Amino acid sequence: MNIKGFSAAAMAAGIRYKDRLDLALIYSEVPAVATGVFTTNKIKAAPLLLDMERLGQGRAQAVLINSGNANACNGPQGMETAVAASAVAARELGIDEKLVQVASTGVIGQPMDLKPFEAAVPQLVRSLSPEGFDDVARAVMTTDTVPKTSARQVEIDGVEVSLLGIAKGSGMIMPDMATMLCFIMTDAQIVFQELQAVVRRCVDLTFNRITVDGDTSTNDMVLALANGAAGNTWIDEENPQGREALEAAVLDICRDLAIQIVADGEGATKLVTIRVIGARDDEGAMAAAQTIANSALVKTAFFGEDANWGRIMAALGRSGCLFDPEKVAIYFDDAQMVRDGAGLGAAAEEACTAVLRQDRFTVTVDLQDGLGTAEVHTCDLSLDYVRINADYRS
Amino acid sequence: MNIKGFSAAAMAAGIRYKDRLDLALIYSEVPAVATGVFTTNKIKAAPLLLDMERLGQGRAQAVLINSGNANACNGPQGMETAVAASAVAARELGIDEKLVQVASTGVIGQPMDLKPFEAAVPQLVRSLSPEGFDDVARAVMTTDTVPKTSARQVEIDGVEVSLLGIAKGSGMIMPDMATMLCFIMTDAQIVFQELQAVVRRCVDLTFNRITVDGDTSTNDMVLALANGAAGNTWIDEENPQGREALEAAVLDICRDLAIQIVADGEGATKLVTIRVIGARDDEGAMAAAQTIANSALVKTAFFGEDANWGRIMAALGRSGCLFDPEKVAIYFDDAQMVRDGAGLGAAAEEACTAVLRQDRFTVTVDLQDGLGTAEVHTCDLSLDYVRINADYRS
Repeated sequence: MNIKGFSAAAMAAGIRYKDRLDLALIYSEVPAVATGVFTTNKIKAAPLLLDMERLGQGRAQAVLINSGNANACNGPQGMETAVAASAVAARELGIDEKLVQVASTGVIGQPMDLKPFEAAVPQLVRSLSPEGFDDVARAVMTTDTVPKTSARQVEIDGVEVSLLGIAKGSGMIMPDMATMLCFIMTDAQIVFQELQAVVRRCVDLTFNRITVDGDTSTNDMVLALANGAAGNTWIDEENPQGREALEAAVLDICRDLAIQIVADGEGATKLVTIRVIGARDDEGAMAAAQTIANSALVKTAFFGEDANWGRIMAALGRSGCLFDPEKVAIYFDDAQMVRDGAGLGAAAEEACTAVLRQDRFTVTVDLQDGLGTAEVHTCDLSLDYVRINADYRS
Repeated sequence: MNIKGFSAAAMAAGIRYKDRLDLALIYSEVPAVATGVFTTNKIKAAPLLLDMERLGQGRAQAVLINSGNANACNGPQGMETAVAASAVAARELGIDEKLVQVASTGVIGQPMDLKPFEAAVPQLVRSLSPEGFDDVARAVMTTDTVPKTSARQVEIDGVEVSLLGIAKGSGMIMPDMATMLCFIMTDAQIVFQELQAVVRRCVDLTFNRITVDGDTSTNDMVLALANGAAGNTWIDEENPQGREALEAAVLDICRDLAIQIVADGEGATKLVTIRVIGARDDEGAMAAAQTIANSALVKTAFFGEDANWGRIMAALGRSGCLFDPEKVAIYFDDAQMVRDGAGLGAAAEEACTAVLRQDRFTVTVDLQDGLGTAEVHTCDLSLDYVRINADYRS
């Protein structure tokens, strides 16, 4: 899919492995309104520190992305390399260095060599094409098994506006190392404050529902660029309809990509939605949903296709959510397994086990104690998760 | 080992499986001073609710323990069965029902049948013997691969006092389902307030350093009984030397059993101590140690014998502990891997990898920012962990 005024390219630069796409560039013909959401981890990789500083101006024109090396925990040398790599891109593109954003994903703590960037960026710039985004989606993959993109078109004041999102995923128990990256490009005309507000709300409702418990990588980031090439009426505080239309499309894209990330979680064989309803408030519901979604015992039971509701109850009990144990109901899709805090026996379990055999299902925990709700997407914890993460660097 | 005035027995009562020790009884000739520490999980199994109420009197004379069924989340029937089982034991022993404590471990949410108790308890009482404790240690096992006991003798005011601890372990990522049970018997003469204080302090320093992040089962409990048969000078507030001597022995036993539990963690191949030093305060150090000790990515790296310090840094960064990323040092035993927040390269990694090949090692994280310290024991996350927990109920 094309987005007016944007082009992209990717190539195999040999950053960690040979003959594998590992360097990508996204470019806007004009400086775009730009905003980002960055990891809350106290240890932030050099590229993020650089990007956060540069985004103070609310503008960016290019994004240089590499996989194979996270450029995190490398001391002062990490920042030097990030700055130098962005300078190479700026020079070749003929733009101000401060308009270049950088993103890295891969192993933490390996010094990152500038040479592959110096050697590859000139050709990367020459390769820029409106059709280059699929290559970008492949170049950012690490343990991902499939590239992840999502596109939408939306009419704003009679003008067609396009949006494209590209993401890479992460190990889903604790997305530490396997970074979540997302880039959203749109040709919408939108002021900085509105774009920032839209992106923050959408990230909170989507990506923050899959990276539970504040488990964040040193490199997680979501970056949005709006270059205005569609020529729609400016979206600002006086155009709430325009903002709503764009926000709905951004939310759609973020939700789509978030689900793709979970479904492609390391070793995942099942995509599970944990829905908590009837809590006293939304915060309690979210605490309960996250604790269940993140429990290794619950996730291994999903892998084993075992309707082990006792583990769900135990996770609920230590989540900090207030509830009455004797009111709890648990459903696997529409099949009820627990009523009034007690199991419903062998026939109910058989029906629930059938649900668990599916690739996708929803666990609903009804606390029957109020109106608070929350939803979190998770995957199972499989033998392959351990295999992948025990061998990741070898 | 014998403890004066205590006897014990175990047998195969067929509670869940046939021909497997699954019912145990511990008995004191006289009512013992008794205290317990129980799970903080909001969902508490029926036996715990019964025990907590009965321990209000500070006395107990018998403990009836079953494996195979946790008697948790069974609705009102769970409490009825717990009370009825204790009544059978009281009747056969000829003691007051309120002096019987009960403990259960096994699957949550399976109705527990009283019949095996009615059938087995009379013979169990007839089998009571001072040598019965090894059988008790075997009867409480679930996914444990070895029985866990620890004994000490200590002289208090010229009198020899004996202590015996029996424990069963738990899955070590999140000890939800696989309950931690511990029973400590001593013939010491000690008043309730002192015994309670000693047990709470020792549990906090030992078992609470392996069950991280408040991850507690519905059935976790530590129970201590002191029957006074040794005839030592009473340990009360006017006998601090006696209290200190006994506390040292209880601490020793708890630490020994806690380490045995981690070493026998589900699927564990390595016992790892996470030591955080140089934090601004002990709370921050504990948050950091627990987050590292509980990170699935760190634990799979241990399993893979991979000195993946980047994952340790990432866990540290999201732990909530305050620190300066550029001061962090990380050691595997004595081999340094990280200085000033950056890796020390291939030679250092080779030395650290050699440490990781050991069965037991210590990861020291020095934040160089203060005097706060904390130590947590953990194990690796192996393929067998997933196998055990995906198949647990089948």
